[in-house]
Amino acid sequence: MEIIRTVAELQAKLGEARSRGTIGLVPTMGALHAGHLSLIERAREENDTVVVSVFVNPTQFNNPTDLATYPRTEEADAALMEGAGVDYAFMPSVEEVYPEPDNRQFDLGPVAEVMEGAMRPGHFNGVAQVVSKLFRFTEPTRAYFGEKDFQQIAVIRRMVELEGFEGLEIVDCPIKRETDGLALSSRNVRLSAEQRSVAPVIAQVLRSSLIKAREMSLADTKKWVTDTINVFPFMNVEYYEIVDALTMQPIAEWSESEQPVGCITVFCGDVRLIDNIKYVR
Amino acid sequence: MEIIRTVAELQAKLGEARSRGTIGLVPTMGALHAGHLSLIERAREENDTVVVSVFVNPTQFNNPTDLATYPRTEEADAALMEGAGVDYAFMPSVEEVYPEPDNRQFDLGPVAEVMEGAMRPGHFNGVAQVVSKLFRFTEPTRAYFGEKDFQQIAVIRRMVELEGFEGLEIVDCPIKRETDGLALSSRNVRLSAEQRSVAPVIAQVLRSSLIKAREMSLADTKKWVTDTINVFPFMNVEYYEIVDALTMQPIAEWSESEQPVGCITVFCGDVRLIDNIKYVR
Repeated sequence: MEIIRTVAELQAKLGEARSRGTIGLVPTMGALHAGHLSLIERAREENDTVVVSVFVNPTQFNNPTDLATYPRTEEADAALMEGAGVDYAFMPSVEEVYPEPDNRQFDLGPVAEVMEGAMRPGHFNGVAQVVSKLFRFTEPTRAYFGEKDFQQIAVIRRMVELEGFEGLEIVDCPIKRETDGLALSSRNVRLSAEQRSVAPVIAQVLRSSLIKAREMSLADTKKWVTDTINVFPFMNVEYYEIVDALTMQPIAEWSESEQPVGCITVFCGDVRLIDNIKYVR
Repeated sequence: MEIIRTVAELQAKLGEARSRGTIGLVPTMGALHAGHLSLIERAREENDTVVVSVFVNPTQFNNPTDLATYPRTEEADAALMEGAGVDYAFMPSVEEVYPEPDNRQFDLGPVAEVMEGAMRPGHFNGVAQVVSKLFRFTEPTRAYFGEKDFQQIAVIRRMVELEGFEGLEIVDCPIKRETDGLALSSRNVRLSAEQRSVAPVIAQVLRSSLIKAREMSLADTKKWVTDTINVFPFMNVEYYEIVDALTMQPIAEWSESEQPVGCITVFCGDVRLIDNIKYVR
């Protein structure tokens, strides 16, 4: 595995690689965990060359404290990537990615106006900025994203349309979870031991809501999820939306979508956790 | 390992063993899981000879359906015991243990009048019958019990006092849990997949109640636990008591005990699950 710090070197290496076959890109913000590893393993299986980018992208952080405290574990990340058979670990500086400010505003449309888009102003535009740059730098065959950031995948598909990345395949991969159900996330390390002991309740309540949903209206199911999580210590539901999986738009009745997805954001203490679950119609 | 089917053979083998050193007894009702294994492993570490009894004791079942459907997995049990280094697996028939009816009524006192004693008439007397027989058959140095059946341990200590088993050490061992927190129990196999997916909420709520307890009265904490579990599908709390760990008597205020223990019984569908948690004063 080679660690690459500059766009120029990345493009030189991948120019060669591209002639040899397919390129799989896994864009990450580092602090790699088993969720990232599952994306990397899939990329490894499906492509001749695997590139993983590790870059904490400032433009997608609406909360400066979140940016400042985002976990950074470069050595462990390199070891994980090496062990997983990654060919190139792209680990650039902020200056390398943004030699000058990126003032682009992407017309991300309705998928980006709800939920995370509403709660984190500027976030998805920042995601579109960095991912479009990574796609231009690497010109991958396939790019891998995890479903924990469910809305993000829809936003990236929209960006790919806007930017005209022909032939690029966006691969979405299932959420990975701790054995107690907590969705893996780099931010989990910020949880105190006590908060960590309560955090599994999010996934527990979502799972249980699949059963409640058979007998409850959509509105009552949303209320049940929110109220039930909120009684637990440290927990504060920022939002729970049930949306159509394709449009990401909230629905009011089960009948409005063949693929309802519940998307939740919960503050566990100060740590913002997200998760989602697919309802069966 | 030898499988022993009769009391006579057991006593013959253990007569020899007793001259060689200590005897550890692990009484079980079979359908052995990792919880039982932890008791067996501890007995193996601490004694020269290990006896495990596998016997579904009819006299402690107040519910005939529970008795009829109690899981029985003799071959798997034998394999587990063999692997764990058990010397003698005592696996008698009902007739061998009860050649004639056991009409003894033990004066188990206040520890047996509350909680499981109140909800399962005759249960603890049946436990006292079979365990006193097993103690007389094996005359062990030490006998091992799991804290999942927290009240049972207090009842057995009382029976040991009444029956005068001098020098017998009752060893209580911590609860073992699935990775999602569900306390291990032979009855867990009866849970449907959906019920099993909800069952971890019991332990989750108990754990979270430790945090709530810092700011809530005892009565409010009990109500919080009960109400919170009850909103989940399939869940029906039979009782939640907070008792003193030594006397097993319910307390009304935190100040009444240095060692409060919460003991819960919940129906998950038709399956009766128990668990407990120690509060920190």
